[in-house]
Amino acid sequence: MKKLINDVNDVVKDSLLGVEAAHSDLVGVDHDNKVVYRCDAPVAGKVGIISGGGSGHEPMHGGFVGEGMLDAACAGEVFTSPVPDQMYWATKKVDSGQGVLHIVKNYTGDVMNFEMAAEMAAAEGIRVESVIVDDDVAVENSTWTAGRRGVGLTVLLEKIVGAAAEEGKDLDGLVALAKDIIANGRSTGMALQGCTVPAAGKLSFELADSEIEVGIGIHGEPGRERRGIGTAAEIAAMLTNPILEDLDFAGSEVILFVNGMGATPLIELYVMYGEVAKILGAAGVKIARCLVGDYITSLDMAGCSVTVLKADAETLRLWDAPVVTPGMRWGK
Amino acid sequence: MKKLINDVNDVVKDSLLGVEAAHSDLVGVDHDNKVVYRCDAPVAGKVGIISGGGSGHEPMHGGFVGEGMLDAACAGEVFTSPVPDQMYWATKKVDSGQGVLHIVKNYTGDVMNFEMAAEMAAAEGIRVESVIVDDDVAVENSTWTAGRRGVGLTVLLEKIVGAAAEEGKDLDGLVALAKDIIANGRSTGMALQGCTVPAAGKLSFELADSEIEVGIGIHGEPGRERRGIGTAAEIAAMLTNPILEDLDFAGSEVILFVNGMGATPLIELYVMYGEVAKILGAAGVKIARCLVGDYITSLDMAGCSVTVLKADAETLRLWDAPVVTPGMRWGK
Repeated sequence: MKKLINDVNDVVKDSLLGVEAAHSDLVGVDHDNKVVYRCDAPVAGKVGIISGGGSGHEPMHGGFVGEGMLDAACAGEVFTSPVPDQMYWATKKVDSGQGVLHIVKNYTGDVMNFEMAAEMAAAEGIRVESVIVDDDVAVENSTWTAGRRGVGLTVLLEKIVGAAAEEGKDLDGLVALAKDIIANGRSTGMALQGCTVPAAGKLSFELADSEIEVGIGIHGEPGRERRGIGTAAEIAAMLTNPILEDLDFAGSEVILFVNGMGATPLIELYVMYGEVAKILGAAGVKIARCLVGDYITSLDMAGCSVTVLKADAETLRLWDAPVVTPGMRWGK
Repeated sequence: MKKLINDVNDVVKDSLLGVEAAHSDLVGVDHDNKVVYRCDAPVAGKVGIISGGGSGHEPMHGGFVGEGMLDAACAGEVFTSPVPDQMYWATKKVDSGQGVLHIVKNYTGDVMNFEMAAEMAAAEGIRVESVIVDDDVAVENSTWTAGRRGVGLTVLLEKIVGAAAEEGKDLDGLVALAKDIIANGRSTGMALQGCTVPAAGKLSFELADSEIEVGIGIHGEPGRERRGIGTAAEIAAMLTNPILEDLDFAGSEVILFVNGMGATPLIELYVMYGEVAKILGAAGVKIARCLVGDYITSLDMAGCSVTVLKADAETLRLWDAPVVTPGMRWGK
């Protein structure tokens, strides 16, 4: 294993020190609780939005803290859920009296720990609501989940719900908006090569020289099938067709998100984007906005994921709204 | 070799199709000439800024085309200079009558071909000036260059000079600004693992399991030394100390750029950022702004580079100015 780290036990700690050193104009870092928070939290009159999960998916979630997106993000150890105390601390940190929304990816540990944190905060009189993102159409249940996994849609949801919170939408309205996004978005992913968790020191799984895994999760969990590599056009079809079969996107405007898993160069992501766009076009789906790059990663996994979200005019307006975070920034 | 491509001969073509599909609100693509250009080129009253080079370094340069940065970028084949006809076409495309600045990284092919293109444009009465970026302190000459190589500083230069052009600075003023940046910026890079050029189908160079290459170029050219991997702190020192020895940064405000080579996850880049920031702090260098992420890459090479640029108040003002490109965007 070759990595740019000091010690396998300090990767998350050292990375958060780097985030703090780089972005102290936007965020603060509580190192005891491993929470990245908006400098100006709690923002008066605004619902607090928090998320979190295992580390190793950067820039998600800490890179999405800032104006127009998250108020705080809790960092677990690599591929390990944060503990309830972290989410509880973050919830108190960002509550301005308007309540707090927890955005939770559907993994058993995350769901359980966010639930406990919500109960702890509720016991102190903080109103907390939670939404669970489960957009991965690859598998119905997995080693890490009951039900579908939460993957790329989380990024789009955090941007859109974050924009609505910034505008002053109340907690009930934000929950309704988040559920609407979850109902209208789907994802799938694939890997060319597994990733190496620092503490493990070896590849999470091995693929043969000409083999890929389709329907992979963001922790290297098994997907739908292992098969021989095809062209970008064939891989785009393997990823996009299950999405189109799962939800009727025909005639809709969508946000198309082609995401890199961490070790795949941008030149390849753009090749994939072109192929996915062709498939959507042929299916009568109109791409209104897009995002291309590494936003929800799996350490040094090579591969990509595709997320498609139906977006009405209001969703697009919120997508276009200003966002100022370390990992996503426009409009200001 | 496993890559998300259709055919080794179509990587650049297909990737440009993807760029066009994704970003037609910002850029156009001329597929015959493999040039990405601003939708609104030529911009009346503005000096045109063009750059280019071999593909495989994305988002550089095509991802930096747009308001506040480049007017056009010429894409060569992977790690191969574009030909003069491409640069000539781009120069004509962006000239509004105020002249055109060529930003050239110091590689023999790029320098020669941009020179020929400038002569062809001059013969048609277009005033062209060129600046050559040579910021890599690792080696004095290399297999690909006479003199130092042009690497990470190119990204910062294109942002800052692009902002000045957007504000209406004339060609002479832009040349002076660019030369000032080149005089005040230095870079070094390192690799954990080589990259695979699609047409070659195998790693550009092999490193042993615990070996790294320090002072690597962006095409996998040899650097200063191969040595055993150390901690992030040790690698940060190997990269930063030669920069500080080459130019006196003590007491200066700087822009610090920690760049990923393509296959290194962001969590590691932030570990590196933290370590480089400590070294600069101890050397009395004040980090005024930063950039962290994959901006000048080498396909799927794993590793990183560090660029430090002295920045006075005017440079920082231009850095903060709005930029709206596929690969760098803020302020609008």
